[in-house]
Amino acid sequence: MSFNSFGRVFRFTTWGESHGPAIGAVVDGCPPGLPLSEADIQPWLDLRKPGTSKFTTQRREADEVRILSGVFEGRTTGTPISLLIDNMDQRSKDYSDVAKAYRPGHADYAYDAKYGFRDYRGGGRSSARETASRVAAGAVARAVIPEVDIFAYVSEIGGDAIDYARFDAAQIGQNPFFCPDPAAAARWEALVDTARLDGSSLGAVVECVAAGVPAGWGAPLYAKLDSELASAMMSINAVKGVEIGDGFAAARLRGEQNADPMRPALDGSNDGPLFLANHAGGIAGGISTGQPVKLRVAFKPTSSILIPVETVTRDGAASDIITKGRHDPCVGIRGVPVVEAMMALVLADQKLLHRAQCGE
Amino acid sequence: MSFNSFGRVFRFTTWGESHGPAIGAVVDGCPPGLPLSEADIQPWLDLRKPGTSKFTTQRREADEVRILSGVFEGRTTGTPISLLIDNMDQRSKDYSDVAKAYRPGHADYAYDAKYGFRDYRGGGRSSARETASRVAAGAVARAVIPEVDIFAYVSEIGGDAIDYARFDAAQIGQNPFFCPDPAAAARWEALVDTARLDGSSLGAVVECVAAGVPAGWGAPLYAKLDSELASAMMSINAVKGVEIGDGFAAARLRGEQNADPMRPALDGSNDGPLFLANHAGGIAGGISTGQPVKLRVAFKPTSSILIPVETVTRDGAASDIITKGRHDPCVGIRGVPVVEAMMALVLADQKLLHRAQCGE
Amino acid sequence: MSFNSFGRVFRFTTWGESHGPAIGAVVDGCPPGLPLSEADIQPWLDLRKPGTSKFTTQRREADEVRILSGVFEGRTTGTPISLLIDNMDQRSKDYSDVAKAYRPGHADYAYDAKYGFRDYRGGGRSSARETASRVAAGAVARAVIPEVDIFAYVSEIGGDAIDYARFDAAQIGQNPFFCPDPAAAARWEALVDTARLDGSSLGAVVECVAAGVPAGWGAPLYAKLDSELASAMMSINAVKGVEIGDGFAAARLRGEQNADPMRPALDGSNDGPLFLANHAGGIAGGISTGQPVKLRVAFKPTSSILIPVETVTRDGAASDIITKGRHDPCVGIRGVPVVEAMMALVLADQKLLHRAQCGE
Amino acid sequence: MSFNSFGRVFRFTTWGESHGPAIGAVVDGCPPGLPLSEADIQPWLDLRKPGTSKFTTQRREADEVRILSGVFEGRTTGTPISLLIDNMDQRSKDYSDVAKAYRPGHADYAYDAKYGFRDYRGGGRSSARETASRVAAGAVARAVIPEVDIFAYVSEIGGDAIDYARFDAAQIGQNPFFCPDPAAAARWEALVDTARLDGSSLGAVVECVAAGVPAGWGAPLYAKLDSELASAMMSINAVKGVEIGDGFAAARLRGEQNADPMRPALDGSNDGPLFLANHAGGIAGGISTGQPVKLRVAFKPTSSILIPVETVTRDGAASDIITKGRHDPCVGIRGVPVVEAMMALVLADQKLLHRAQCGE
Repeated sequence: MSFNSFGRVFRFTTWGESHGPAIGAVVDGCPPGLPLSEADIQPWLDLRKPGTSKFTTQRREADEVRILSGVFEGRTTGTPISLLIDNMDQRSKDYSDVAKAYRPGHADYAYDAKYGFRDYRGGGRSSARETASRVAAGAVARAVIPEVDIFAYVSEIGGDAIDYARFDAAQIGQNPFFCPDPAAAARWEALVDTARLDGSSLGAVVECVAAGVPAGWGAPLYAKLDSELASAMMSINAVKGVEIGDGFAAARLRGEQNADPMRPALDGSNDGPLFLANHAGGIAGGISTGQPVKLRVAFKPTSSILIPVETVTRDGAASDIITKGRHDPCVGIRGVPVVEAMMALVLADQKLLHRAQCGE
Repeated sequence: MSFNSFGRVFRFTTWGESHGPAIGAVVDGCPPGLPLSEADIQPWLDLRKPGTSKFTTQRREADEVRILSGVFEGRTTGTPISLLIDNMDQRSKDYSDVAKAYRPGHADYAYDAKYGFRDYRGGGRSSARETASRVAAGAVARAVIPEVDIFAYVSEIGGDAIDYARFDAAQIGQNPFFCPDPAAAARWEALVDTARLDGSSLGAVVECVAAGVPAGWGAPLYAKLDSELASAMMSINAVKGVEIGDGFAAARLRGEQNADPMRPALDGSNDGPLFLANHAGGIAGGISTGQPVKLRVAFKPTSSILIPVETVTRDGAASDIITKGRHDPCVGIRGVPVVEAMMALVLADQKLLHRAQCGE
Repeated sequence: MSFNSFGRVFRFTTWGESHGPAIGAVVDGCPPGLPLSEADIQPWLDLRKPGTSKFTTQRREADEVRILSGVFEGRTTGTPISLLIDNMDQRSKDYSDVAKAYRPGHADYAYDAKYGFRDYRGGGRSSARETASRVAAGAVARAVIPEVDIFAYVSEIGGDAIDYARFDAAQIGQNPFFCPDPAAAARWEALVDTARLDGSSLGAVVECVAAGVPAGWGAPLYAKLDSELASAMMSINAVKGVEIGDGFAAARLRGEQNADPMRPALDGSNDGPLFLANHAGGIAGGISTGQPVKLRVAFKPTSSILIPVETVTRDGAASDIITKGRHDPCVGIRGVPVVEAMMALVLADQKLLHRAQCGE
Repeated sequence: MSFNSFGRVFRFTTWGESHGPAIGAVVDGCPPGLPLSEADIQPWLDLRKPGTSKFTTQRREADEVRILSGVFEGRTTGTPISLLIDNMDQRSKDYSDVAKAYRPGHADYAYDAKYGFRDYRGGGRSSARETASRVAAGAVARAVIPEVDIFAYVSEIGGDAIDYARFDAAQIGQNPFFCPDPAAAARWEALVDTARLDGSSLGAVVECVAAGVPAGWGAPLYAKLDSELASAMMSINAVKGVEIGDGFAAARLRGEQNADPMRPALDGSNDGPLFLANHAGGIAGGISTGQPVKLRVAFKPTSSILIPVETVTRDGAASDIITKGRHDPCVGIRGVPVVEAMMALVLADQKLLHRAQCGE
């Protein structure tokens, strides 16, 4: 029940600050016997890695993960898996101003109000750097749910949305925006670059789909699958909204429009109905239905901008602040692998919880 | 870590089915010495009570709460507070069809897939009747956070939104819709009545504000105030979306538009800055900033409708189903006191968590 | 993580005071589909019931349990099981002195020191009456672990121990002491009666064995089976010591004496070794070995005695106190079904935890 | 609620195997602003360090701890504190036999039964090496409870007990046995040396006292201070018994003998009574009374011995095994700093839990 842990029986704890010597995660409750090595984790970290294009922060981090425990002869042992990533490119000098004045939209003031002081270097604990630990833990989670296929993508940047008619999953990895619509990707290039050159930033919407989730996962009432996912997504830096399935759009439908009608499975089996729609995002009553689990996540624009904003200092004096340093012009982009990781972590936990109560 | 509990140190557990003898909640971890009696809880239950207008279900329940433990001579003792509400008006006969076929949008199929069978009477455990327990628990939570003033209202029904220029908090209790805009309330009367007569239903958006939350509540990273609130809200029946502050709208802003600039407090004190905006909904880095905490919740339209929907039976045969019985044409309306209760429950827990780690 | 709950995925929460209207438990996380009715629970409560002989408290309680939720058509549904037992024979007048002065050995002073005040009637929340809720919850736990056979007995009262050479399990239910040695039972009759007539009380040792626990239950490191059992037993009123297997006696052995040697199973199977001893009480490294799980529990003498003891009042004045009312002269006796219940509750939880991580 | 974590709001998680690259702990929920550096932790680790005398294992470990997060400019920040200790002296070759046959008394068979396989090198996760992580975490806990003074000592080895009339706390650090009685220490030298030369091992009893614990800590019912301590102690390798206060001896007393009478405080204040005895070990009703918290812990003899014991192989064949390698002839000795650490960890957690519910 600590605050830096997530999950119930498959549970991870992250630690580390942006400018400390390292960051990491401890994954506990992992089933034994699963093949696992650094090579299974590193590719996901590479997807999130900073400095890969001009559309992400120019901080350079190798983000090489080491497994320090819980794996023996290439398989998980059932004991805690300690994952460690060294911080290489900390430039503490960039952050000296931040020690004195509060950056609006950042955790600066709130951390000071809560804890009395803070590690101000690069945002300290509240830095998005922490999400590397999640991505590493998420790679372990994927090993627990091989039946599930998870993919996320950016569906909207700065209010400019993809055209679902042009949706092509194969495109997601082909552009720096995790964008499934090549036309949108082309537009975003200009859009994000303009924001970057303006010293400004843009918000984004990330969508995530998990296919292959069997019916029956989710632990009502207060570990409902939608609750767990909402909690997981809202814990990601800069996220301010979560929708399961149609989300807010469902609030504008009538009952018959929002129904997900069922028909017998086409193969005549009784393994589960054929659903004719998926407004509910694959979850009913907090339990998966066997349809794809779908959600949308809103990322606010990066709070670190070069445009001056009114603020106050620690001493309560008026000041204007611009946030220098190396920042993502659109933090939602690198949020994609983080959203996927959190989806994997929730589903792995729910799989084991379901098994605990209901057996295989 | 059970599934029917919520909260970390101020923690409640609910139990009970729609058509069992009673429902209830156990509230654990409540500070001692707080004045509490049934009279402090009943008014909140009355707000949620069914059968109060033609816009809500015609089920008749007195919803009288009894305190069975944890209170002595009018004050909380610090031991578990057991709250019990008898079920009076169960008409199990209404639900006989439901035993055989799955109601789309309901938990029927998912519960069967998870548990192998279910208490089908009135939705059993997945019935919105459970939310009465939350409202009762929420009344206890309010006693823990007297410094906080919580109010919620419906801002949108079936896509028809209030006009914020006409927002009048005093109106909220003056109409059957918890609507702060009298003009909208008048329109909704026709809107909901039409849907009801059509045998259909409507979705709604509920907004909630908590004023008086001091800066510093929230337990990063995985008990961030926004995570906890999202989890709490998404656990309410029919909720499919949560926004903190501007939510998805923030994803369409640029960084300088979304900033919440600060200025020194007008009284010259250093008790916290004056915020010039509140896009973040009173939470930064998962911690309250001292601004009002604001969120929005999307309720899907009630799944129980009289319009036939395609479905399958337990045996896998095709069928069409209409859901008779007594249902809310817009379940979001009675969601208002539930949203308030969950807000109170989260804040009470976070207040105590903050005190645990950081002292008074 | 509330304080009045126990268990991790099979989890129960108790509530209620000695002299409130009722006491109860909510059992959460129970697997679905298990046959359960009041008739499965009541016999265990009857074993613990007060007023059955002159060797137990003369308080009269029917201790009739009602199941208020979580069971449908005779089977558990997987939703919370609410169990309620009415308090019938509260004589609050007996306890008026207790309001003012602290009974040594009781929780009176400690509760006041912690909470500022307390429900002093009959010990309030700290009364052994609460253990009825545990026994009820334990009966549900037994349904989860049909493969396990649990029995407990008193092995020692007031320092007078049974003779293991005369151990006869069939005798346990044949005397008011849960004593497996008829000769000891005969001696204890005089011993306990003398203490009772003296207005004094006696301590006892209870032993418990769980046969049929398969190898592999227990969740190292901090939910080791021995840790969980120790925590469970030490939570019972008046318990001050717990030994797993040989316990303190093992601390006096040499390594070769304390070893539990193994040989191949007699049937030639490789389902687990034949152990030639069980010093470890069936647990190694926190995990069950397939041998019987064995533990011993020390109950202190009932603190309520008619012999005056020096104490102080709430106001800090010196006073002498005798504790009138109806009390067990040896609270360990009625502890037997409670110890069994806690054993069942721990094992049910560990069975499900094992299944979560390692599958069936 | 993971298995390798302990504590509720002040919570630590350990990871690491005997022969992996490192071991460590993550401490979460620590209050901010406490002075902390490696220099505050290292001395406690040095007390537990192997290889310091011929009475402990000859494995050589520097056991140098590094703080990787959660401390900034010499003070705790309120974020997770990651502690890492490199493993330096792993001699995996010593353990090749262990891969094939089960060492009686060790976790070998149980781990295989649970997980299907295990890291057999040096006991892997079940090695007492893990306790270094606890000692490091315990040092952080001490910073949380400066008002408490904790000390532990060995009171008995191989059945040879200290003479309490000769108890001298100043002696504890003056001999390799943490023994407060110099005469006993002298006897133990021969005793342990004989066992060591015989290739055998001895059990021990460790006692621990925490002075300065204010009245009011402990969270009844299922986080009672005695429950938490029992769970904590029983989680230590080789521990098989725990007594709070008089423990099993209390079961042999009559009520009036076991009472802890009270008198008004000598200074006339009403800050708490003067207790005339402490049979209860400073805990009543699960809550501290303000007296010293006292407990006793039984360590079985080290299971690793050079005397052959009957066992079976992984393949189910009969075998005799001797456990070569470097082992403690009496593991209880090095258990002393571990018992102290667990005491500190429980008390720090309970202090914060008390503050959460009841304020300062």
